[in-house]
Amino acid sequence: MRANGRPFKARIGANESSFGPSPKAVEAMCVAAPEVWMYGDSECHDLRLALAAHHGVTPAHISVGEGIDGLLGLLVRMMVAPGDPVVTSDGAYPTFNYHVAGFGGVLHKVPYRDDHEDPGALLVRAEEVGAKLLYFCNPDNPMGTWHSARVVERMVKALPDATLLVLDEAYIDAAPAGTAPDINPDNPSVIRMRTFSKLYGLAGLRVGYAIGAPELIAMFDRIRNHFGMGRIAQAGALAALHDQGWLTHVQTELAAAKARIGQIAAQNGLYALPSATSFVALDTGRDGAFAKALVDALMARDVFVRMPFVAPQNRCIRVSAGPQAAMDAFESALPSALAEISGKS
Amino acid sequence: MRANGRPFKARIGANESSFGPSPKAVEAMCVAAPEVWMYGDSECHDLRLALAAHHGVTPAHISVGEGIDGLLGLLVRMMVAPGDPVVTSDGAYPTFNYHVAGFGGVLHKVPYRDDHEDPGALLVRAEEVGAKLLYFCNPDNPMGTWHSARVVERMVKALPDATLLVLDEAYIDAAPAGTAPDINPDNPSVIRMRTFSKLYGLAGLRVGYAIGAPELIAMFDRIRNHFGMGRIAQAGALAALHDQGWLTHVQTELAAAKARIGQIAAQNGLYALPSATSFVALDTGRDGAFAKALVDALMARDVFVRMPFVAPQNRCIRVSAGPQAAMDAFESALPSALAEISGKS
Repeated sequence: MRANGRPFKARIGANESSFGPSPKAVEAMCVAAPEVWMYGDSECHDLRLALAAHHGVTPAHISVGEGIDGLLGLLVRMMVAPGDPVVTSDGAYPTFNYHVAGFGGVLHKVPYRDDHEDPGALLVRAEEVGAKLLYFCNPDNPMGTWHSARVVERMVKALPDATLLVLDEAYIDAAPAGTAPDINPDNPSVIRMRTFSKLYGLAGLRVGYAIGAPELIAMFDRIRNHFGMGRIAQAGALAALHDQGWLTHVQTELAAAKARIGQIAAQNGLYALPSATSFVALDTGRDGAFAKALVDALMARDVFVRMPFVAPQNRCIRVSAGPQAAMDAFESALPSALAEISGKS
Repeated sequence: MRANGRPFKARIGANESSFGPSPKAVEAMCVAAPEVWMYGDSECHDLRLALAAHHGVTPAHISVGEGIDGLLGLLVRMMVAPGDPVVTSDGAYPTFNYHVAGFGGVLHKVPYRDDHEDPGALLVRAEEVGAKLLYFCNPDNPMGTWHSARVVERMVKALPDATLLVLDEAYIDAAPAGTAPDINPDNPSVIRMRTFSKLYGLAGLRVGYAIGAPELIAMFDRIRNHFGMGRIAQAGALAALHDQGWLTHVQTELAAAKARIGQIAAQNGLYALPSATSFVALDTGRDGAFAKALVDALMARDVFVRMPFVAPQNRCIRVSAGPQAAMDAFESALPSALAEISGKS
């Protein structure tokens, strides 16, 4: 936005929830603001208690951190020594890869299959290389596709002994029923990552959490910043969690916006991939260069979208669902953006 | 506080500024709250620009992080490999030690001298062991004592070639003129740490920053969490920085409160060490067990103070300056707390 020099008409590129946070969360943050001279609770006691109740686990199963990004950094530090093998999908979350590289791990990447992460191939690779971590994002970013709970549950059962499954469920609240697997929270082979950044609309607050076996969760306490979670962050997340009505509202709005993105795509000859997330990947039917030109042409029209960065997924653009004005701006910009780059090519 | 089951009458143990944050910072945070669905600027552009202007350096000299704690963690990760020697004072900031231990560094501790960190001995030890980092907090926590700018400048000149000086200036805004050294910001041998947690009254917001040579500062970008600094955090810190009038107000209040702590101490037979920070170390004239009993007796009276944890500094208790009500509560609780533990001993 700064590079552009003017505000976007539609900020639908970073999978933020432009439906906004719960008004109750906003109120809680404003109430906390004058009290911010005090450190936040170093144990995130109230938030962990509420999260535990929400998920039917104990607070000992939950570690709160500075977004999933922060938790992934701590997890990689804990589990990956220089030279250790780690498995992910080729084109999945770059921040995970960034942390693995940062701590000297060796990444092994498995191709997507039909625009889905490929559980079978991921497991085979994890076994082959003796992976310390296997990263799996369900529903997936950047494609929006997903696997059913049953598939994930089978994956958990088939994990190699040496491998910890990092199940990134940042978008799970946007997924259909039957997507979140039933996993024994005491299972030491899986850690689930959740966030307030997506459907809860609190990306700029930096609050995520991990759910896992208590002995694994306790390891975070040995390396995390003791007072890392701020006071406003804890207050905002707690109020957001308590306002499940807002989450339902956002889910309803999301579904409508995603349907509209699909219609806009179809009107313009693009194919909308099915999505269980807060965004839709639109297949241009061309290649990465074409999709990049389309992203740039939309940006020139003050519509901010992004795209996958690995072939063949990078034939798509990725459009976050947003309120009507954002969808209107996208609808209005897309035809001329397409015309411009088709004329060029 | 949770363990106690009721609010403190005086929360003067964690060196938080109970004078509170700038009302303009509070307003900025509330304005930012509804916009927190957006990630914060990954480069902290506006805040770094303002900090650069404030310090007469360029934005390339500044890295913003999740408090000094977060920055120290990144710095240790960057500079300290397992087995590498690091020098600090025995009884200085435990979070620095925590990070060094966490990354496998070997701590070498130098005793305080007359309740001051000992620059000469620190330098000798750094030379002897070939320290990668030399941590020096000026003014000092937990004793409140300080060295003049001239001493620190001589320290910088005398640093061993292999050693980076970590100059923690968390309390510098409470220090008398002539305490902050004049250091060439391009000097690659020093990194200064500053924070919004202390006099700016934003401990629960988690914003600190490092000032150093651009090539050193750029290293943070290679390992930090890209979106680690939240939107409200950046807005609050920026507004606080711009409200230097509030800082002046807090400095005035602080000075008065510290003088009052000295009076209360004297009335009760305790000796107040000179302080260039936002707290005062009070010498009980006894030992660590006595000081611990006093801390506990004050806590039982809902007055939260802390103490140094290494002998002989742990003969003191550490009392943060606060507004009148907090000082009243301390004045009221201290005589009976002392009477109780003196009766016991």
